Amino acid sequence: MSSEIARIGILTVSDRASRGEYEDRGGPAIAAWLTEVLCSDWKACPRMVSDDLDAITGELVTLCSDCSLVITTGGTGPAPRDVTPEATEAICRCMLPGFGELMRSVSLASVPTAILSRQTAGIRGQCLVVNLPGKPAAISQCLDAVFPAIPYCIDLIGGARIETNPDRLVAFRPGERSTAVSEP
Amino acid sequence: MSSEIARIGILTVSDRASRGEYEDRGGPAIAAWLTEVLCSDWKACPRMVSDDLDAITGELVTLCSDCSLVITTGGTGPAPRDVTPEATEAICRCMLPGFGELMRSVSLASVPTAILSRQTAGIRGQCLVVNLPGKPAAISQCLDAVFPAIPYCIDLIGGARIETNPDRLVAFRPGERSTAVSEP
Amino acid sequence: MSSEIARIGILTVSDRASRGEYEDRGGPAIAAWLTEVLCSDWKACPRMVSDDLDAITGELVTLCSDCSLVITTGGTGPAPRDVTPEATEAICRCMLPGFGELMRSVSLASVPTAILSRQTAGIRGQCLVVNLPGKPAAISQCLDAVFPAIPYCIDLIGGARIETNPDRLVAFRPGERSTAVSEP
Repeated sequence: MSSEIARIGILTVSDRASRGEYEDRGGPAIAAWLTEVLCSDWKACPRMVSDDLDAITGELVTLCSDCSLVITTGGTGPAPRDVTPEATEAICRCMLPGFGELMRSVSLASVPTAILSRQTAGIRGQCLVVNLPGKPAAISQCLDAVFPAIPYCIDLIGGARIETNPDRLVAFRPGERSTAVSEP
Repeated sequence: MSSEIARIGILTVSDRASRGEYEDRGGPAIAAWLTEVLCSDWKACPRMVSDDLDAITGELVTLCSDCSLVITTGGTGPAPRDVTPEATEAICRCMLPGFGELMRSVSLASVPTAILSRQTAGIRGQCLVVNLPGKPAAISQCLDAVFPAIPYCIDLIGGARIETNPDRLVAFRPGERSTAVSEP
Repeated sequence: MSSEIARIGILTVSDRASRGEYEDRGGPAIAAWLTEVLCSDWKACPRMVSDDLDAITGELVTLCSDCSLVITTGGTGPAPRDVTPEATEAICRCMLPGFGELMRSVSLASVPTAILSRQTAGIRGQCLVVNLPGKPAAISQCLDAVFPAIPYCIDLIGGARIETNPDRLVAFRPGERSTAVSEP
């Protein structure tokens, strides 16, 4: 496992935001969530790209080459320009369908249209890629649901060690005493 | 978005029903559910086909060319002749895994064999295709679960506008005041 | 449907266990669960293989040729050597996504890292293949969840008839009076 600082890619996928017609709110919402939850050192690598398959795959390949985690926002719906899941699948060695299942399941408690999201997750090299919806309101809901499994996933693929503030979110590592429990 | 009347394909997939050995109950159950729930104008396009991959893909391609929604019934199980999900995947631009996940999840509350259903949904052009099981009992259960997301999905892909009777089922459109709530 | 005794393949996928560095606990846990739950005659076909795609596909093809059910344990995570789902998908005619969805869902109640499992199920010929995680603790949890649907699935694909002890687990066959209910 790497002892380097974790680099985390934050990729906003949006035609309008990338043309400057619309302020990106998804990327900053992800950065704010990570700042609140992580207690080990990390570095944000924010990027923005239009809803174009080649442009997204290009950014994902670059980010995955030196990040342990890449979180995308946007482009996961059923509209013709929504191609973030296709780009993710194109560049990953394997997919983790449990991420999409759980994120849709928790979003469904808020909005019936959660089933329209095609968001998924996968592995490329030593990097985990996770798709989030574009709506800022859904971002913390999804991250709260799946992040407990993310640090251990990154351990398994040889990425950087990530620690979370246990008062905010407990990262689960099987076989390791929970960091939320203090020594007697 | 089209201002035309919504055309809805209802495709019964069954060797026995298509040979006339068995009365189709799935197709009429779907038509009855839609008649009860929709309050905007729509036109049913009922079709019947055997459990043959080429025959199903042929009907799906034709129906998708002028329908905003195609609902299939039958052919989603594990038996060798069950190929409706394969036909759906073959003709769709993208798949929406959340539909199958939710339909299996609600069916599981009634029958443990719900996990054997491979039913899915996908988009072709301006048409959403949704697979339902063959058993009439499962049809309203599945439609009640996923239909709240369907009108907005069809909006996003440029199909006809569909309105539901809010006393029966509220179609959720993000950013739009719920039609079930009256103005103060 | 075959009147032969059901042959059930139990395939342990593990580099360490196959090299003898580690005692296989997954395979014996599956055999013990089946011994407790099945009340019709069956024969275990235990095998062990390293985490190698070709080795796993080879064992799966052989086991599927004369078993009605093959249960694998191990190799379903995100690590580079975890390739059991890929091997399963490579040899199956069709996949049954509901198995993975339900197993992840029940495991999630115990461990947040359940979403990292890529376990799935599929059909090859007259055989159902189901992936379980490697951890013995997860094995009965997953089998308890999905097994009620397995005997009927095997009926549908022409495999051997499997009966369960209804005091332990009721196998659901639609249209058949529950074996858990005694005649009045």
